[in-house]
Amino acid sequence: MKIYETQGFPNPARIRIALAEKGLTDQAEFIQINVPEGEHQTEAFRAKNPFAAVPVLELEDGTCISECSAITEYLDHLDDTPSLTGSTPKARAQIHMMQRRAEAGLLDAVGSYFHHATPGLGADIEGYQCPQWGNHQKETALKSMRYLDTVLADQPWLAGDNFSVADITAFAGLVFAGFAKVDVPKECANLIAWHARMSARPSVEALG
Amino acid sequence: MKIYETQGFPNPARIRIALAEKGLTDQAEFIQINVPEGEHQTEAFRAKNPFAAVPVLELEDGTCISECSAITEYLDHLDDTPSLTGSTPKARAQIHMMQRRAEAGLLDAVGSYFHHATPGLGADIEGYQCPQWGNHQKETALKSMRYLDTVLADQPWLAGDNFSVADITAFAGLVFAGFAKVDVPKECANLIAWHARMSARPSVEALG
Repeated sequence: MKIYETQGFPNPARIRIALAEKGLTDQAEFIQINVPEGEHQTEAFRAKNPFAAVPVLELEDGTCISECSAITEYLDHLDDTPSLTGSTPKARAQIHMMQRRAEAGLLDAVGSYFHHATPGLGADIEGYQCPQWGNHQKETALKSMRYLDTVLADQPWLAGDNFSVADITAFAGLVFAGFAKVDVPKECANLIAWHARMSARPSVEALG
Repeated sequence: MKIYETQGFPNPARIRIALAEKGLTDQAEFIQINVPEGEHQTEAFRAKNPFAAVPVLELEDGTCISECSAITEYLDHLDDTPSLTGSTPKARAQIHMMQRRAEAGLLDAVGSYFHHATPGLGADIEGYQCPQWGNHQKETALKSMRYLDTVLADQPWLAGDNFSVADITAFAGLVFAGFAKVDVPKECANLIAWHARMSARPSVEALG
């Protein structure tokens, strides 16, 4: 399988971590797309993802899958042990609930702040910007950090006792937050401790 | 199981359809939450969903699950036939990709238009509004309709040959669009034909 990505970017990091957690990194061929230069907006790349975003998974038969939540579902079900997305109905429910909260509330919110209320990747790449909305979404991201901090008061990982894709998504949110200079509130001790646990996982250390 | 909902609202409709498709409607006890009167913002309801939104699934052990994508994962895995979310890695990938596109690009975009650029549910309920963003998201929703129309040119359902949760999510998007008076572009013949197929499904007819 091929992974089209921009190494170091938050969403591609989600797939790098998932691949490593599943022991699949060696089976992926990584192809770099130069997003800062607009390579994701070319006709050739839009044929793989009409929404012009990385990462994209291309299967051997040419099928292209975008959206990290979808790529992770694929990777996690290649064996019969869906360790990242849950192996019981209740585990799946709790993981997907936290996945959505981490994605919409944190990662996408930081992204909206970066792309709308800062210069982002520059005028040529950004197109439409709504600074008022971007700044509001920065507040949403900070509220989400405080919410995730309360979740982690009683459990080691976002969906409970076990590491899951929700942790990967939230970690990418904090990677993006660091890049966009949205600081984690100092009082979020549980979230900061969780971030240290995440950073110590081999799958995250391998990001370099 | 209990389902806290506001009957007739777009997101609760997703769960009603999923329950009917899985033959589980009789196993659910529906409890109405009066969102227009602010009942979702009470302390009692926030204990079930801190983000103060319907629907919420409450399991027998008291566990509360919100976010429709998570509730659907639960319902779809109660038997060993995940007919709505996919039974192979590739099917799961394609369904989750289209689910995300239908949710972020259509349903949530219409919601942003309704809640930010119209009076929505009224000043007491809405709180912060950003009309500029809401109007931009109306354009996003219309673009998504045109995109989904192209997808349906070659296949009967959004993720391929089989009906899936992505269809349910997009259908709820069009329910919300109708309510918010965002008309489907007349040239979207494939999307309009798909909407007719959806409307004829017993699970959708049962919505009344």
